[in-house]
Amino acid sequence: MDMWYTEKHSKNVGITLRVTRTLFSGKSEFQQLDIVDTPEYGRMMLLDGLVMCTERDEFVYHDMIAHPALFVHPAPKQVLVIGGGDGGSIREIVRHPEVELATLCEIDGLVVRKSVEHLPTLAGAIDGSHPKVKLHIDDGLAYIREHQNAFDVILVDSTDPIGPAVGLFEEDFYRLVFGALKEDGIMVAQSESPFYHAQIQRDMFRNLRAVFPIVEMYQAFIPTYPSGLWSFAFASKKYHPVRDFDRERAAKRDFHTKYYNEDLHLGAFMLPTFARENIAD
Amino acid sequence: MDMWYTEKHSKNVGITLRVTRTLFSGKSEFQQLDIVDTPEYGRMMLLDGLVMCTERDEFVYHDMIAHPALFVHPAPKQVLVIGGGDGGSIREIVRHPEVELATLCEIDGLVVRKSVEHLPTLAGAIDGSHPKVKLHIDDGLAYIREHQNAFDVILVDSTDPIGPAVGLFEEDFYRLVFGALKEDGIMVAQSESPFYHAQIQRDMFRNLRAVFPIVEMYQAFIPTYPSGLWSFAFASKKYHPVRDFDRERAAKRDFHTKYYNEDLHLGAFMLPTFARENIAD
Repeated sequence: MDMWYTEKHSKNVGITLRVTRTLFSGKSEFQQLDIVDTPEYGRMMLLDGLVMCTERDEFVYHDMIAHPALFVHPAPKQVLVIGGGDGGSIREIVRHPEVELATLCEIDGLVVRKSVEHLPTLAGAIDGSHPKVKLHIDDGLAYIREHQNAFDVILVDSTDPIGPAVGLFEEDFYRLVFGALKEDGIMVAQSESPFYHAQIQRDMFRNLRAVFPIVEMYQAFIPTYPSGLWSFAFASKKYHPVRDFDRERAAKRDFHTKYYNEDLHLGAFMLPTFARENIAD
Repeated sequence: MDMWYTEKHSKNVGITLRVTRTLFSGKSEFQQLDIVDTPEYGRMMLLDGLVMCTERDEFVYHDMIAHPALFVHPAPKQVLVIGGGDGGSIREIVRHPEVELATLCEIDGLVVRKSVEHLPTLAGAIDGSHPKVKLHIDDGLAYIREHQNAFDVILVDSTDPIGPAVGLFEEDFYRLVFGALKEDGIMVAQSESPFYHAQIQRDMFRNLRAVFPIVEMYQAFIPTYPSGLWSFAFASKKYHPVRDFDRERAAKRDFHTKYYNEDLHLGAFMLPTFARENIAD
């Protein structure tokens, strides 16, 4: 049986991948979860039919959601991930020796359980065994409302602004995140494709700028995401992602990163003109 | 009729686009040429079934093959394009006021004729009317053999290293290009996807380094190309693409570029770790 999965990125374009096996398929109270095996990209997780991550290219997303903020903040001790139930972001965070505690707050326990079961290269740090990792199955908004002034870095590792993540793109949410950060805290959030999602980016960055004094966008290339060009919002109370970047510390890191490096950190903020224009004031 | 075109980027993955109309389909002595209309990407040209360009995203490729070299070379007067029969590279070259003559040497006259007919936003400068453009329907190797020490910049705007373009990735060809450049000349060539084509890149950059003293890779994101991450080789006799970049001149350009800008020029050379490793000495 020659089986292909096609994710439509619009009515008129999509990516198609050969699938050899379904490892899990089921519904939580929040969403449909599928984990399948593909010959080209390894195991692949889908939520409501959208590709969340694959074993082959997840290194790009997880390097880029985690390392820029963690190499800009001079002492990232308390780090929170909202969403990110596959565990990839937590895996990267705990590679930083400065981190004392990495907390995962994921709304959907099924995503965590099935990632631990079927995506061990991602979820190794959220299987309950890591001494620096704490796990909460909870709504991110409720969690940060109760944990104000608590974190150095917060990563919003969410799905698209439809379904359970819709509230994670709104100004009220960013005000709560601002409050949950310490006085020099940094938030990073995935911010969709500059090529396909100009309007979402415009709204999101307007909402962020209403709350944070420093808001910049940076880019990464992720082959299995719509258009291949993805972006992140860097929203900060004090540190600028380029001017306050500790290039020396990043260059001296004692772990290998397949995508991130101290030069790419700077290059990621040098955006194509059309991406700049999406979020122009 | 719901018609989709799927380009397989390997046996196991591909891009799929809805197609509404075929504008041209035919075979030259070199290759199969198709031009179709798509709702998402506008008109799209395929050679031997591979997407060469679409109206919606061709600006990335053509900005990035042309502008970096033309803003590094202090006086790019004589510019040659080998391949590039759609005309997009020539269109960008003649926007530079320093350029006195832009020569297109394309092996396949059918590509030029059908681009002029069906892709006017790309081929406007190669329809015979532009005073600074000269057109040769000829084999690129034969042409440069007869035009040594003649060009400031040569752009190798080729297809993949299969079919008619296979010779354009070999050391002998780069020696001819070196000879066809003046003493401070620059060559730029498309150099495939760092994500899918590591071995091609390794061979190509080894061949280039055997000939040119300065060889660097830079990246651009092109949604309709395999993986979305594409690259170019910058091979130069004298000028370094970053250290000798005239940022001021680039910033003062009097034309709008939807992808290229003077910051992105620098960022494009800041590569992901895995791409660096593809071409490590």
